[in-house]
Amino acid sequence: MTNISAARQALSHLDIEKSQANIRASSRDFFWYSPVLKPRLDHVVADFVVRPRTQDEVIEVLKVCYAHNVPVTTRGAGTGNYGQAMPLAGGCVMHLIHMNAVKEVKLGRVTCEPGVLLKDLDAHCIAHSGQEIRMFSSTWATATIGGFIAGGSGGVGSCTWGSLRDLGNIVRLRVVTMEQEPRVLEFTGEELARVSHAYGTNGIITEIEIPLAPAYDWVEMFVTSEDFGQAMAFADDVANSDGILIKLASVYEAPIAHDYFQRFKPYVTQKDNLIGLMVAPHSMDGFKTLLKRNLGLTLIYRSDENDWERGPGRVFEYGWNHTTLRALKVDPSVTYLQVRYGFPEHRALVEKMRTEFAPEVLQHLEAIRMDGKLGFAGLSLVKFTSEKRLDEIVRLHEEAGAIIFNPHRYTLEEGGRQSVDDRQLRFKQEADPKGLLNPGKMIAWDDPDFGYDSMYVYPKIQAAE
Amino acid sequence: MTNISAARQALSHLDIEKSQANIRASSRDFFWYSPVLKPRLDHVVADFVVRPRTQDEVIEVLKVCYAHNVPVTTRGAGTGNYGQAMPLAGGCVMHLIHMNAVKEVKLGRVTCEPGVLLKDLDAHCIAHSGQEIRMFSSTWATATIGGFIAGGSGGVGSCTWGSLRDLGNIVRLRVVTMEQEPRVLEFTGEELARVSHAYGTNGIITEIEIPLAPAYDWVEMFVTSEDFGQAMAFADDVANSDGILIKLASVYEAPIAHDYFQRFKPYVTQKDNLIGLMVAPHSMDGFKTLLKRNLGLTLIYRSDENDWERGPGRVFEYGWNHTTLRALKVDPSVTYLQVRYGFPEHRALVEKMRTEFAPEVLQHLEAIRMDGKLGFAGLSLVKFTSEKRLDEIVRLHEEAGAIIFNPHRYTLEEGGRQSVDDRQLRFKQEADPKGLLNPGKMIAWDDPDFGYDSMYVYPKIQAAE
Repeated sequence: MTNISAARQALSHLDIEKSQANIRASSRDFFWYSPVLKPRLDHVVADFVVRPRTQDEVIEVLKVCYAHNVPVTTRGAGTGNYGQAMPLAGGCVMHLIHMNAVKEVKLGRVTCEPGVLLKDLDAHCIAHSGQEIRMFSSTWATATIGGFIAGGSGGVGSCTWGSLRDLGNIVRLRVVTMEQEPRVLEFTGEELARVSHAYGTNGIITEIEIPLAPAYDWVEMFVTSEDFGQAMAFADDVANSDGILIKLASVYEAPIAHDYFQRFKPYVTQKDNLIGLMVAPHSMDGFKTLLKRNLGLTLIYRSDENDWERGPGRVFEYGWNHTTLRALKVDPSVTYLQVRYGFPEHRALVEKMRTEFAPEVLQHLEAIRMDGKLGFAGLSLVKFTSEKRLDEIVRLHEEAGAIIFNPHRYTLEEGGRQSVDDRQLRFKQEADPKGLLNPGKMIAWDDPDFGYDSMYVYPKIQAAE
Repeated sequence: MTNISAARQALSHLDIEKSQANIRASSRDFFWYSPVLKPRLDHVVADFVVRPRTQDEVIEVLKVCYAHNVPVTTRGAGTGNYGQAMPLAGGCVMHLIHMNAVKEVKLGRVTCEPGVLLKDLDAHCIAHSGQEIRMFSSTWATATIGGFIAGGSGGVGSCTWGSLRDLGNIVRLRVVTMEQEPRVLEFTGEELARVSHAYGTNGIITEIEIPLAPAYDWVEMFVTSEDFGQAMAFADDVANSDGILIKLASVYEAPIAHDYFQRFKPYVTQKDNLIGLMVAPHSMDGFKTLLKRNLGLTLIYRSDENDWERGPGRVFEYGWNHTTLRALKVDPSVTYLQVRYGFPEHRALVEKMRTEFAPEVLQHLEAIRMDGKLGFAGLSLVKFTSEKRLDEIVRLHEEAGAIIFNPHRYTLEEGGRQSVDDRQLRFKQEADPKGLLNPGKMIAWDDPDFGYDSMYVYPKIQAAE
C-alpha cells in the first residue's frame, strides 16, 4: 500500500518543501505550450517535494519511497514541454536543484552533477579552460544539464555535433536504481541509451560526463530575405560550409519575426523571413563572403557591432522552443509541432508542407546534423483550432514523409517514434521493479499492447478536482 | 633580354646558395613519384637560388629579377609532387626557408610567415594556447605552411574541415606582385582564390592568417577487416558520426598494408584491409562503441596503449601521399592517381573501380568533407606499365564519373579540373605582366587555346643536356 505520509515523515530531515504553492510550482513544467496537454495535466500535483543534496540522499529518498510504494518523479528546472517531470500519479517529486557541483573539467570533457544550470556549467568550463558544452537547449539560462539529458534531444550546437543520442555526445552517466537496496551503476557506450532521454522512468542520473568544445566569442547575427526558399537555402549552405564554424542556424518564415519578435518591429516587415546565426569569430570572413554571394539577403544585426536601440538579447533565445514561447506571448492560440526533415529531401519537404499549410502552419527550422548530413528540425508554429485538426496536420505531415515527434503527448513513445524502446523497458524491469519511477510516461511498461491509434491516457493519472 | 648574371650580382648581398649540388637539390620536389614527370623534369635546374630573410628582401628579389627579365620560381620545402616549385625555364629559385616567423596566435587563428614548417607551427600554437592548424599534408614534419597553401589542397583534418579552398579555411594572405615596383596586397574572402593553390605563378605569399582548432592528444589507431567493403563503410560511418571528433580516416585495400607497410608484417595478412584513424581522446568511448557494432573489425594498434615491438610512427604518415611513398620504397614500379569520389555515389564508385582494376589499381581512400558531405579522396596505387595505359586508366575513371586530378602533369590546369581559372589568370596579368613567375605552370597564360587532348608541353622548358 502506498503510504505517502510515512515516506514524507521518514524523509523529514531532508530539504522538504513546505509551501503548497511551491509544491504546485515544482510539479509543473512548460506543458502548457500544448493546448492538448494543458487541460489534461493542469491539475497534476505532487504530494510532497524533496530536494536531496547528495547522491546518498537520493538513495535514501528512493529507498524510503520504495518501501512505502510512493511514486518518485525527478526533475531539474522543469523547462520541459511535455510534462516530462510532472507527477501524473502524485507522490514524491525529487528536485535535484541542490546537486549542482561541477566536479572536474579536463581537456575535452567535464564531470558534473545533474542539477547544475547549463549556463553555470558553461561559465565554469570557460573560466577553467576556455571550453563549453557542445549543445544546449534554448532554455540555457534556466535549465539543468540533467534535465537536458533526461528530457531533451538536442539544440543549439546540433548543427555541428548532431543530437544527444549520437555516439560521443555523452561520455558516461551514473545512475541510481529504485530497488529495495538501490544500486549505483556507471553507464557508457551502448548502455547510455537505456537512461538518456528516459524522463527518469528507469533510474536517477546522479553524475554526468560529457564532451566539451572550445568556447568562442560567437558572433550572433540575424539576416533577412523576402524569399523563404533563399533564407532556407542560405541556412543550409552556411551549415554545409565545412570551413565555417557555427553553433546555430535557424530559419523563421515570414511573418514570424515581425509578428512575434517584439524588438524586431523597427527592422523587419511582414514579408521578411529571418535567419538566426551563431558564427565563430575566426569564421566571420568566410561567412561574410558567402553572404555576399547571395543578393537579397540583408544582415540586420550582429552582436559585436550594431546600432539597435534595444538589443534583441541572445540569438539562441529566439530559436528552438523559444520561438514558440515568443509567439505564445503575443498570440495564445499558437502552438507547435516537432518535425524532422531529413537529408536529402529536407528542403523540398519543407516547401511542400509550406505550400500545403501556410499560414495555418508557419515554418521554423533549425539546422541539425543527422548521421553526418545536414537536415532540419522543424518546430513549426501552428494556429490551433481543434485537437482534431492538429491530429490531421500531424497525419498529413507523416503521410508526406516528415517524421513527427508529437509534443502534445506526455509519453516517451508518443513523443518519440511511437515504438517501444526495448533497452529502456528492459532496464526499467531491472531498476524499477515496482514501477514507481515517473509513472505513466512509458507506455511499454503500462500497456504493452497499446496500438497508437489515439492518444494514450494513463489510467492512474490524478483525477482533476 | 634575360640577364641572369646581372640579377645574381645585384642580389649577391642576400643569402645566395653557392653549392651546385644544393642548387640542384633546391630545384627539385617529389615529382619523381610520377614515372611520367620523372624523365621530363629530372634535368630541370635553377641558375641561382636565393633565400630572402624578410618581405623587403622578397621585394628586392622580385624587383631585380623583373628588371633583368629573370624567371622566379618560389618554393618552401619542396615536398610537392607535381614539379609545382621546379624552375622549368631556369632562372631564380626563391627559397622561403628563412621566413619562418610565427607572428601572432589568437583564439582561433594564427598569423605567420610562409616558410614555417607545419610541425613547428603546430608546436608554437600548442605551446601558446593548446591550439593546432585545422589541416595539414602528410609531409607535416618537413613541409611549410606556404607550400601547403600555394601547392596543396587538403589533407589530415579534411575529414572534418573540408579543403583549403573552402570558405573559412584561409583567413588572409599577404601577396607581393612582380612588377617594376612590386605591390604588397592583402587578400581575403573571394580574393583568396586568386593566389591559393596557384603555385606562386601570380604573386608571392609573404604572410598567412589561418584558423586554428583545439589541439587534442589524438588517439592514433589502425583497424583491420578482411572485407574491403566493411573497411570502407566503417571509415565512412566513423566520419559521419557527428558526435565522434576525428582528424583522419584512411582506408587501404589489401594487400597494401602487408606488402608496403614494413612494420605491419607481424600484425596483418595479405587479406587484411586497413583503416587508419585519429580520434579525439574524449571521443574514444563513442568510437569503441561503434567499433563493437561491426563484427569482423579488429583494432590492431592504438598509439596510447599497444605492445608493438617497433611502433609504426604517426598514423598520418601512412595516409595521403605518404602511402605512395611507402609503396614506392618497396616497389619502384608503383605510381598513383588522385581521384575524387563524391557523395552520395562514393562507395559504389569505389567498388566499381575496384572491380574493374584490382589488383592493377589498389584503392587507398581518405575521408574528406565536400560541401558538408563526406566523400573520399582516392590516392589509388597504380602498377605502372606505360603512359598509354595510365592515360587509359584515367579516362576510364572519368568515364565512370570519378573526378581525376592528374598527378602526372606539371600545370595547374591539368592537375586540376582541366579548365582555366579566370581569377588566377586575370590576377597574373595584373601582378606578373612579364610572365616571370613560375613559368610554364599556367597553360591559360602561355597557350589559351590549348585543347587538353594530350599532355601539355611547355615550349620554353629547359632542354635536357
